[in-house]
Amino acid sequence: MKTKSVKAYGTDSAEADLKQFNIDRREVTSKDVEIDILFCGVCHSDLHFARNDWGMTQYPVVPGHEIVGRVINTGEGVSKYKKGDLVAVGCLVDSCRTCNNCKADLEQYCSGGWVGTYGGYDKHLDTNTHGGYSETIVVDEDFVLSVPENLDLAGIAPVLCAGITTWSPLRHWNVGKNSKVAVVGLGGLGHMAIKLAHALGAQVTLFSRSTNKIEDAKALGADQVIISTDETQMESVMNNFDVIIDTVPYAHDLNPYVGTLATNGTLVVVGYLGPLDPMLVTVPMIMGRKAIAGSLIGGIAETQELLDFCGKHQIISDVEVIKMQDINKAYERMLKSDVKYRFVIDMKSLKE
Amino acid sequence: MKTKSVKAYGTDSAEADLKQFNIDRREVTSKDVEIDILFCGVCHSDLHFARNDWGMTQYPVVPGHEIVGRVINTGEGVSKYKKGDLVAVGCLVDSCRTCNNCKADLEQYCSGGWVGTYGGYDKHLDTNTHGGYSETIVVDEDFVLSVPENLDLAGIAPVLCAGITTWSPLRHWNVGKNSKVAVVGLGGLGHMAIKLAHALGAQVTLFSRSTNKIEDAKALGADQVIISTDETQMESVMNNFDVIIDTVPYAHDLNPYVGTLATNGTLVVVGYLGPLDPMLVTVPMIMGRKAIAGSLIGGIAETQELLDFCGKHQIISDVEVIKMQDINKAYERMLKSDVKYRFVIDMKSLKE
Ligand SMILES: [Zn+2]
Ligand SMILES: [Zn+2]
Ligand SMILES: [Zn+2]
Ligand SMILES: [Zn+2]
Repeated sequence: MKTKSVKAYGTDSAEADLKQFNIDRREVTSKDVEIDILFCGVCHSDLHFARNDWGMTQYPVVPGHEIVGRVINTGEGVSKYKKGDLVAVGCLVDSCRTCNNCKADLEQYCSGGWVGTYGGYDKHLDTNTHGGYSETIVVDEDFVLSVPENLDLAGIAPVLCAGITTWSPLRHWNVGKNSKVAVVGLGGLGHMAIKLAHALGAQVTLFSRSTNKIEDAKALGADQVIISTDETQMESVMNNFDVIIDTVPYAHDLNPYVGTLATNGTLVVVGYLGPLDPMLVTVPMIMGRKAIAGSLIGGIAETQELLDFCGKHQIISDVEVIKMQDINKAYERMLKSDVKYRFVIDMKSLKE
Repeated sequence: MKTKSVKAYGTDSAEADLKQFNIDRREVTSKDVEIDILFCGVCHSDLHFARNDWGMTQYPVVPGHEIVGRVINTGEGVSKYKKGDLVAVGCLVDSCRTCNNCKADLEQYCSGGWVGTYGGYDKHLDTNTHGGYSETIVVDEDFVLSVPENLDLAGIAPVLCAGITTWSPLRHWNVGKNSKVAVVGLGGLGHMAIKLAHALGAQVTLFSRSTNKIEDAKALGADQVIISTDETQMESVMNNFDVIIDTVPYAHDLNPYVGTLATNGTLVVVGYLGPLDPMLVTVPMIMGRKAIAGSLIGGIAETQELLDFCGKHQIISDVEVIKMQDINKAYERMLKSDVKYRFVIDMKSLKE
């Protein structure tokens, strides 16, 4: 298979900083779209994967799955996109396409195994897939998204992961006008959850451990902030929320939040993979038919729906734009939650 | 308020056996129905409540909330029932009737606090309510259910608690033709869950730790039994079930069962109040949008729906009929799961 060598940023080992090297991109096949990458968001997964925090990384790694760019070439069988189109690629670049979930536009739950934008298996080149910290990417048109032209391009990038991760549960659990939604955690995911739930017409509450996030949360669209360490405030929202989106990326006590779910309410964990420590207690779940669920990113059709919604409602992520060369510093700041609310790489910096 | 003294069975303390004594029943008020009790099912809650296992019992206690009987008297404002009607009373005898849940026929989640058939607050007599281990009971017509005449009366009693506890989640989570339902635990609740899910048209699986329940489960309507300690069998049902009804009344590991839920599936805990030990792990929940929920008995309208369904489909509980005087022996056997599948008291024995 014919390939092109392009510049990328990545790492050969869990311990090393990210640095520049070259990777091969395939020449477009019949259904492929070649994309010149303009911006790429920086997701916590990028860092965890680069550092092998999940014990499954194969090197070299080129992270990045919040990709916005312009089409520069298309295979002869491509019908959805043409040169010059503004497009995006999120967390998935392929799936089995034949299982029930794929047929139901739920590629993120593909039972054949979906192909991640980085660290997946690239069947064309028999290597790992490489993500958006690079000059270009080549993706099957079925996994390429159309981006509205009216939005800031850096701000749209995080919609591809942080946005869809919160949008999918909001939609699946039918959030709309007058829904009562609470968000736990105000980071990349949490700030998008607030914006999107607000734009869907919900009454939005942020749970926070400290008072210093009140102003920011309200500016993002929250109607109120409940200080989770204040018993009186917690008591005031007992049996209240239809949906809680929990974006916290580490083990924490869900029981106080379960108490604040209304009858038939659902708390959706989107940020933390692991055991629920301390243990979940079933009493309020049984006494109020409350549920705890998980949710993973979103399917391609749902991601397109979100991009269209963002275009219509002028929603973008709040971002800090950085150069590719500053990625290692950005990772360190991200670990300290020192970013409002997402780093996005201006990929011009890699091409200079 | 005028009262009548009637024979009952109950206890004055957590340590004592149940014995016969007299209790007061109110004379019917305008909306009341007086019921001659024919049969009363024996629920695990009866035993736990009598022995103060939940630390909330006030004595004396007269258990029993699976009550079937005939109307012997009605208040002048009663429109739904007349003398001679075959009726039933389940776990609830009143609720606030004004909260959103009461208005939505979800009295079991009444935010004002529903009144249990025993151990609740009897506003008429300013005492505890007393349950079905007695000659008669007086209940507001809105909490009295109509019983189809074509069914065995002893067999219908457990429908009022064991039945509705499993019916409500089957209905809420939309079980119907071709749904894949699994049941964990084959006791009073579990055997009703199998019968009802089967009658709803679902494919029904019983999870069991041993092979000695296979024949019984199939006779009840299960299509297959999966031995939960057999890894190969568990592997064969990964990502398979739309709904799992978990009836096990003690802490146990839910994680293997979560793995067997299909995408969007829900495991409903109906039998165990307490911490989920060992801890629930979020990974399969997130990777397959799976949920863990709780569910409590059912509302009055839903219980009537179930009784009508049982009449139409000729469904009753498998019971062992006992005399009132044998209740203490029955409790001991129940603790050893030595009953297929529910004891029901023939209340004639109390009246002799
Ligand atoms: Zn991500
Ligand atoms: Zn698939
Ligand atoms: Zn019961
Ligand atoms: Zn109520």
